[in-house]
Parts: sequence; structure tokens; C-alpha cells
Amino acid sequence: MASVGPSSPAAAAGLAELGALATDARALVAAARLDRSGWDPAGTPLALVRARGVDDVVRTLEVAHRHRLPVVTRGAGSGLAGAAAAGPGSIVLDLSGMDRILSVDPVDQVARVEPGVITADLDRAAAAHGLFYPPDPGSVAISTIGGNIATNAGGLRGARYGVTRDYVLALDVVLADGTGLHLGHDTVKGVVGLDLVGLVVGSEGTLAVVVGATLRLLPRPVRVATAAAFFASVAEGAAAAVELARAGLRPAVVELVDRPTLEAVDEFRGTRLAARGGAFLLVQCDGFGAEEEITLVEKVLARSATSVRTTLDPDEAQELSAARRDALPAIEARGRVLIEDIAVPRSRLGEAVVAVHAVAARTGAQIYVFAHAGDGNLHPIIVVDPARPAAAEEAADGIFAAALALGGTISAEHGVGRLKRDWAAQELGPASLAVQRGIKDLLDPLGILNPGKVL
Amino acid sequence: MASVGPSSPAAAAGLAELGALATDARALVAAARLDRSGWDPAGTPLALVRARGVDDVVRTLEVAHRHRLPVVTRGAGSGLAGAAAAGPGSIVLDLSGMDRILSVDPVDQVARVEPGVITADLDRAAAAHGLFYPPDPGSVAISTIGGNIATNAGGLRGARYGVTRDYVLALDVVLADGTGLHLGHDTVKGVVGLDLVGLVVGSEGTLAVVVGATLRLLPRPVRVATAAAFFASVAEGAAAAVELARAGLRPAVVELVDRPTLEAVDEFRGTRLAARGGAFLLVQCDGFGAEEEITLVEKVLARSATSVRTTLDPDEAQELSAARRDALPAIEARGRVLIEDIAVPRSRLGEAVVAVHAVAARTGAQIYVFAHAGDGNLHPIIVVDPARPAAAEEAADGIFAAALALGGTISAEHGVGRLKRDWAAQELGPASLAVQRGIKDLLDPLGILNPGKVL
Repeated sequence: MASVGPSSPAAAAGLAELGALATDARALVAAARLDRSGWDPAGTPLALVRARGVDDVVRTLEVAHRHRLPVVTRGAGSGLAGAAAAGPGSIVLDLSGMDRILSVDPVDQVARVEPGVITADLDRAAAAHGLFYPPDPGSVAISTIGGNIATNAGGLRGARYGVTRDYVLALDVVLADGTGLHLGHDTVKGVVGLDLVGLVVGSEGTLAVVVGATLRLLPRPVRVATAAAFFASVAEGAAAAVELARAGLRPAVVELVDRPTLEAVDEFRGTRLAARGGAFLLVQCDGFGAEEEITLVEKVLARSATSVRTTLDPDEAQELSAARRDALPAIEARGRVLIEDIAVPRSRLGEAVVAVHAVAARTGAQIYVFAHAGDGNLHPIIVVDPARPAAAEEAADGIFAAALALGGTISAEHGVGRLKRDWAAQELGPASLAVQRGIKDLLDPLGILNPGKVL
Repeated sequence: MASVGPSSPAAAAGLAELGALATDARALVAAARLDRSGWDPAGTPLALVRARGVDDVVRTLEVAHRHRLPVVTRGAGSGLAGAAAAGPGSIVLDLSGMDRILSVDPVDQVARVEPGVITADLDRAAAAHGLFYPPDPGSVAISTIGGNIATNAGGLRGARYGVTRDYVLALDVVLADGTGLHLGHDTVKGVVGLDLVGLVVGSEGTLAVVVGATLRLLPRPVRVATAAAFFASVAEGAAAAVELARAGLRPAVVELVDRPTLEAVDEFRGTRLAARGGAFLLVQCDGFGAEEEITLVEKVLARSATSVRTTLDPDEAQELSAARRDALPAIEARGRVLIEDIAVPRSRLGEAVVAVHAVAARTGAQIYVFAHAGDGNLHPIIVVDPARPAAAEEAADGIFAAALALGGTISAEHGVGRLKRDWAAQELGPASLAVQRGIKDLLDPLGILNPGKVL
């Protein structure tokens, strides 16, 4: 197999010291250099390390640190912001092979896992004990716990159950120089020392490499109740989501789907959803009170919906949620996509969707919107026109600007990576950025961990 | 009024620059120098600033920074670990006068507050909109939001609703040199940049001064169901709490009370609770499913309890919870107390109570235990014998050692302050401590913010 070949004396020395731990076979390295963001840093990384355990990570970082070689850590490579895309000269540290679920404790409701565990696999292991792992990013079937931790991944159930950070009790990490460190507590509560777990969660591989996690699980809800409603317009659908909050209801799932997305699903599945309304809202309540709560949800939705159906039956729920479940595959069938993830205060959800549609009209870009409406988190999906790639970029910038103008954020759950670095600087402002850079320098003084990302 | 008088040229210069913003009147300064920990740093602070707004805080820190004067920030002074106790030469920065609730938004379910707001007052303001502020430390009627943020306060509802950190979306802080900084997001989700909010929450005044907070609220539960049970022994009560978790139930409140505490309540209130069993367990479920869930709770408890009663009636619930509600006042009636707050993994709760009782037997100290059993958080309360104060200290050390031996933490929700500094170092270990000290030095290079505390 052709090898990449070291690009400098330091790279050659590092490669020699890594020995059999690393491969520089061009095909293997090339296969591990990108993520799902579409961002291509151009050029081939120096080498690939497929770690089988903590010792491999420690050794890789010791060598990288000694020779100042950049390290880009990756799990499944499902990231959407370019954090796991590796440039020339870097060592790709692949943790997807560290995929053991070490323990699931049904009384403490805690799981200990390696970072390469697929998120859905952890949830399945928890289910065997009557438990579940609440964070459920759209990528749950392919993304890893380590990647979820790196981005502080959210998901559909965020409005009620929160995000990855809320489920990480403790972390085993390896610092840039190869030092191992245990952060956090094995207890649900614990306030001794600064919250270093929170600092590492969402740091996208720039502060430390996560090699183990202690995660909270929760009792699996005894039942799930589903309501599915259509509205004449997306503004009315968004307003209905706001009314649910005003009524004091707290569903686990509140998903809004706009008309362009319904039309894409119709084309993809041969359905006629768009004929039923200009927006779709999927609401799920769970737990002991699900039945009573969904009845109240139905009442609120019925005030403005063109139709509402509710069910306690899981099969019927599957059928009712097709408009949401098939949204992304239906859009992806139309071309290469940029998946954005802005958030705004819940009360401004409707304005945000309207603003995104205005960006589409202005730039001529195809944009589809579905949203975790319960927490004001929109996913505008831009289908890139190969003839006009600049329109997609212009549209993304318009979407970010709209998010900030509405008091929101440019990334609710995917992270900054490389693609949103400039916008992140704008959102944070120079004073906050300076503190963040100070922390980065403290933990990674040579700047070898995922350089050029996030900050 | 007699004045404290500056102790050095720097102190004199600082005091002069603060001018009318500060007072060095001995009686006023002395009244603001201690908290409820019982720790007395001896000597009188240099001056007291009663801040009326952000500008006062900025000016105080600018002056303190220029002259390297220590600043000890305080709210209500209800802290239990000595974090708000101020030594000689320091400036006491009292934020209790910054007590405005700036807004409560019923749709976004967000409140903006100043740090001096009393926690119960925020909850009352939320109630006017059908909302509540979930963290409910025992001190809720006297402690401030700023103090709750400083310690990452927990409370009775922690098992279901989490702790203060889970409700802080954004913070306005002033850094040691007087620079103002906005941290976090106004949205429920947000992953842009490192989690600086999490870093400041629980940092006990050592990293920055919190001058404003954006807090999440939740819809107030529609109903609360209560179960109260007695058990022959505290081991059986703790085991029942564990069985609730194993049964997949998730009450908002699971409070365990031991026999010495029941006897104290009996003496205090003239009741005969201890005649009914050696331990008491109070369980509350809330929300739409409360009634169904409490029925299942009752079934689990009835397997081993000597008696169980359940109710949906608020007045009866008040009556049933007297054994828990009166626990602390009843113990405090017996003498000066040290209130500890260890946590262990939930499955080891029974062992932890037994270990605390063994410490009492060994040291001869009077120790009472009640516990937020749902999250493994015990409050061993030591009544200090004035004739043998060393026994109380020995008992505290024994309790901390037991917590660590059981895989737990020495502080679940009160913080490290000054009293638990050495034990915190032991719990964290040198590598983690070094990182924490680095962050402290980064944010407060002159070490003027609450020096000698926590780390």
C-alpha cells in the first residue's frame, strides 16, 4: 500500500516512535480524514492510530506532544461542523474501536463506557435493565458517545430531558502531554472542585481526549403518548408549540416540520402530507402522566390545527411521525446538504422560521426547516446547488445572522468545528474568547489538540 | 462609630479610592464577616461594600485589583463551609442589596435576576406565572441565588430535578480586574464555546463575581402525591429507597430520616415518631402521573415498612412530612451544629448511614442523619459538645473518610469553602488540582478573589 510519507523531520521521528501503533498507508489514512460536514481541509494526514485502549491514546499523545504533531481525535466521523476533519501533517486518533460498555448498574442507574460505543447501543444495553439513555441526536444510530460528548449533542428529547452534558457524571481523559486524569464524581451530586467535566464536554477534541465516561441513565418511561397535527402555516404551527409551553405542558418531544420538508417527504415516500397543511407538529409525552398530558396537548393544538390525531399505540405513533422521521432522508435525496442547528428563545421560534424562509428567497438557496420546537432549536437544511455553491454559503451566513439577531445561538447541538469558527467568534465576543483561549493554552500549551478548530 | 483602620499602605490607598462606596465602621464590618459554617478566620476585615448595582462591583474589583486587596463576596451569609467568611485585611463585597427580579417570561420560562434575590422569592415570582424554580436547598427561605450559584446548591428535589447548574443558562460576571463578561446562552440549548457558565457555578467566589443570572424555570407540577413510611431500621429504610430506583420509579423527593433525628423531633415537637420505627422515609411524586406513581411507590415501601400512608391532600402531606421538615430545627435546638453533606452512589446509601453511626459510636459525638436518598446525598449533622469540640472535628473527618471509602464525595451541595479544603485536595488528587489551580490563576492572576478558599 502506498504510504503518506512524513512531511518533516519531526513527523518522521514521531512516525518512527509510534511504530506499529500507527499506519501511514494512504488508503487507510484517507478513509479516516473527513467527517460529514462536507469540509475538506485538503491534503492527507500523516498517519492513523486506531486505538484499542487507553494505553494507545497515552502513547500517541506522548509522541505527538514530544514532536509537536497535531492530533485530530475521531469516533464515527458523523460530525457536521468539521471538528473531526484532519489536515495534512496531523495524526488521526480513531477511538471507534474502544467500544465496550463496561457496566450498566440498574440501581445506581449509571453506565461506564468507552468512547467508541455507538449511542443507540448504549440505549439498547440500558433497555435490558428497564433504563434509557436520554440524549438522542438524530445520528444516534451511527454516532459515538465520545463524539456526543465532544459536541455536547442534543436531540429530540432535549426539551424535557436535556443534553449530553446533563448525563455525564465523570470522565477519564488524557491530556495533550499524555497525562491521564479522572474528572467528576461517581455520585449524582458533587460540588468538590471546579466543573472540569463541563469544560471538556462540548470542547470538540481541543482540550483533552476522552477515553472513558460514567453516564447517568434514567428509568425508561412506562408509556409514550403521541399527538400529530397539521397547521395552515408554519407560523401557526410554531405558535401552537409556544402555546404548549404557556399551558404549562412539558412534552418530551415537540417537533415542527415546514412545508418544503413535507413536500420533500411526499416526493420521497409517495405520500400527500403537504395537501394537509403548511406545517406539521409532532408531540410526544411520556411517563406515568402521558395519557392525561396528551389530552391537554390535543386541546391546545385543536385550537388552531387543521387536524389533530393522538394515540397511545406505538405502531400508530410510528405511522403518525413519518413526516418527521423521513424528513432528513427525504431532503438528502435532493442533493448534498448542509445541516444547520441554530437555536433561539422558544418564543421567537416562528420569527426564526420566517427569517430562514426569507434567507431562502433572498439567496435562491433551497432550505428546508424542521425544529426541536420545545427548546427553540431549528435545523435549517440547505441543499447545495452544485452550479451555485456560493448561494449555500450565503444562505448559511444569513441563517447564522438571523439566529444572533433573534437573541439566539449559531449552534445548539452540532458544535463549531471548522465551519462555524468565525461566527462563533462573533457570537462569543473578544472578552469571552480571550478567557476560552487562555483555558485552551493552559490545557494544551503546544496547541496540538485539534488545532484550528472551534476557537 | 469606631473604624477598622487600614493595616497597610495598600489598604489605606484602596480604602481612600473606594471612598463612600465602602465603610470601615467596625460594627458594620464585623456583622458581615462570618457565614453559618462556624468557621472564624479571626480578625476584622478592612471594609464592607454594600453593592447597589454592577457599577459598584466593577469599581470595587478595580480598586481591589490595583492594590492587591482580597475580596470576599457574600450574599445572605448562609453558607455552611466558610466560603463567605472574611479574614483581616479583606474587602467584604455584599451583594444582598442587588435583589431585583428583573423579568419572568412565562413562554420562554426564563427569569433574569440579580444575585441577591432570595431563592424562595424567585420561586414565588415564578408561581405567579404557573412556573417554579426547581432547586430547593434547605436554606431556600434565607439563601440567595448568587450564593446558590456559588455553591451549586442542590436540595430535596435533586433526584428528579437536578441542581442549580441545571437551571443557569447565562451569567453576567465581573472578573477579578473589574472586566465585565456575559457567559452562556439565552437559549435552552447552546454549544458555542467552552462551558464557562459551568466553570463559574460552584466556584465559591474564587473565579469571578456573579452580578446577574438568566435562569430556567419549569411549569409548576399540577399535583404532588406524598407517601410517608416508617421502617424498623435505617438500613431497611435505605434499602427501600434503593428498591424505588430498581422499580423504575422516579419520585421528586425521597428523604430518609434516622432514629436519632426522630428522637430529636419528638423532643422538639412533643410527638412520638420514634415509637413508630427506627427510620422514616418521605416520598413525593409530582406531575400528571403523580397518583399512579405514588401507588407503585406505596407497593414497594409496603414490602418492608412497618407502616405506610399516602395522600394527595396538601394539608395531610404537610402533616406527614413533619418528621423531615422539623429535623434540622429539632437538632439545632440541641446545640451548635456542623451540617455535613456527603454523597455516595445511591446503592451504598445504607452502608453510608451505618458508617456515620459507627463514627458517632467511635468518637462519642452526637450525629443525626437525614438524607436526600434519591441521589445518595446524606446530611450527617454533628451537634458540637462545647466541652469536647475536638470530638466534632474527629467525627467530621470520619464522615469524610467514609464518603471517600464508599466511592463518594465529601460535598454534594454545600461546597468546600475553608472547612473542607484539605479533604477536597484529597478527593481531587494532585493532577486534577493542578488543572484547577491553573484555571484559578488564569482568571484571577493576583489571587484576590476569596483567597485561601476551596483550592
